[in-house]
Amino acid sequence: MSKPLILVSNDDGITSKGIRVLVSVMKKLGEVVVVAPDSPQSGMGHAITIGETLRLSGEDIFEGVEAYKSSGTPADCVKLAKHYVLKGRTPDLVVSGINHGSNTSISVLYSGTMSAAIEGALEGLPSIGFSLCDYSSKADFSHIEEWVERIARQVLENGINKGIALNVNFPPKQNESIRGVKVCRQADAKWQEEFDERFDPTGRKYFWLAGNFVNFDKGEDNDEWAIANNYVSIVPCQYDLTAHHAISQINKSWDWEQLKP
Amino acid sequence: MSKPLILVSNDDGITSKGIRVLVSVMKKLGEVVVVAPDSPQSGMGHAITIGETLRLSGEDIFEGVEAYKSSGTPADCVKLAKHYVLKGRTPDLVVSGINHGSNTSISVLYSGTMSAAIEGALEGLPSIGFSLCDYSSKADFSHIEEWVERIARQVLENGINKGIALNVNFPPKQNESIRGVKVCRQADAKWQEEFDERFDPTGRKYFWLAGNFVNFDKGEDNDEWAIANNYVSIVPCQYDLTAHHAISQINKSWDWEQLKP
Repeated sequence: MSKPLILVSNDDGITSKGIRVLVSVMKKLGEVVVVAPDSPQSGMGHAITIGETLRLSGEDIFEGVEAYKSSGTPADCVKLAKHYVLKGRTPDLVVSGINHGSNTSISVLYSGTMSAAIEGALEGLPSIGFSLCDYSSKADFSHIEEWVERIARQVLENGINKGIALNVNFPPKQNESIRGVKVCRQADAKWQEEFDERFDPTGRKYFWLAGNFVNFDKGEDNDEWAIANNYVSIVPCQYDLTAHHAISQINKSWDWEQLKP
Repeated sequence: MSKPLILVSNDDGITSKGIRVLVSVMKKLGEVVVVAPDSPQSGMGHAITIGETLRLSGEDIFEGVEAYKSSGTPADCVKLAKHYVLKGRTPDLVVSGINHGSNTSISVLYSGTMSAAIEGALEGLPSIGFSLCDYSSKADFSHIEEWVERIARQVLENGINKGIALNVNFPPKQNESIRGVKVCRQADAKWQEEFDERFDPTGRKYFWLAGNFVNFDKGEDNDEWAIANNYVSIVPCQYDLTAHHAISQINKSWDWEQLKP
């Protein structure tokens, strides 16, 4: 049997520690091709590059691995890989990360890491975004390497339902070993924004986005709970945003006489 | 009764024709405050500005309306409005658009217009993104103004379930009048990407993202069908991406012996 073809991307950029760890683990499982941003793209959400040109160039930084850096977003990188770099070959797995920082709960919406994985799912490919809940650029990934490998093996062996990307978050390194894996729902939480108002040397105002994460969720079946309790969280994510239950609610509650042509 | 407070944003930038039309309609319904990007942000998805500063400045371009332009993304604009500009006042409605171009089906994921509306929903506010399925910068909006007003009135009067933003798309101007409104699900479709490969004057390669929209959906209850049949489509969208049905599927099909600590 031929080796699985694994596409690797991320949002912290091709030189980040997280993608080096991910590439080293994926090399054990198959043939790896990397297409990743040439600079950090955190917070890019599902952005794509329209109205500007894209660059793509080969990059010999992972031993024995075909790798490219791009000026584009994580979603652009997956599109470039699928429709240009791989020249008709179809990846058996798309992995993104390992992100330096949490992508639990609502952060999935802002996450470039997950946008690469969701772009993979849009292409009908089994896709996983991996994030370590530790924002340090020197974060210790040693306790999660075996978990990344084991989860990727499960996906290669069992697949994922079409149109679904897994959002996998790992707790930061602690004295106690990771307690296991929980398949979760996205926690109900939000960022309580604050804007840090400053003045530049010319006296013009500018802002830094700041804020605190506020968790409203009291359940034990969500990703925030899993991470807080030293479990790996896996949230299956879909790109159909339709709130199906709301369709009948709107049909019932609106005054349709007012909406006649 | 005091007038409703309506926050307006968009992704085509504060000088676009679509936002001028939206502001003029919203002025009939309440007190309008505009916070919009200072330049076009199409395709920005749910990007936010991290690691860079944000600018915000007053802009006297809509008669009798408090307005600001920002260097940020559409999602940044809604955050800035809610947590800085409005100084503790809570909007009764957040509207975004009117986008020059379709945001039906999968385009919702890439849409800056919808990211502003979804950011509003995250803040617990009734939110609507409006898009006209006509990409021309000179697009004719005259046939949709009354529909924008009537839909916004329904939301102001009846609310929307919490956590839901409406993705409203209008058909382009045709000889026949719009036939009515359909509450829809997001169509199952995708962009079939192509990269247009070129060389700059120094001989270095670059790419333009191009591609065709491919609709796989044969149903008549989705937004693509509605637009193709000259109806206004309304898709209620949620920011909980969890594929709830997939949780038990993964719990059943994976080999959990392999995932023990």
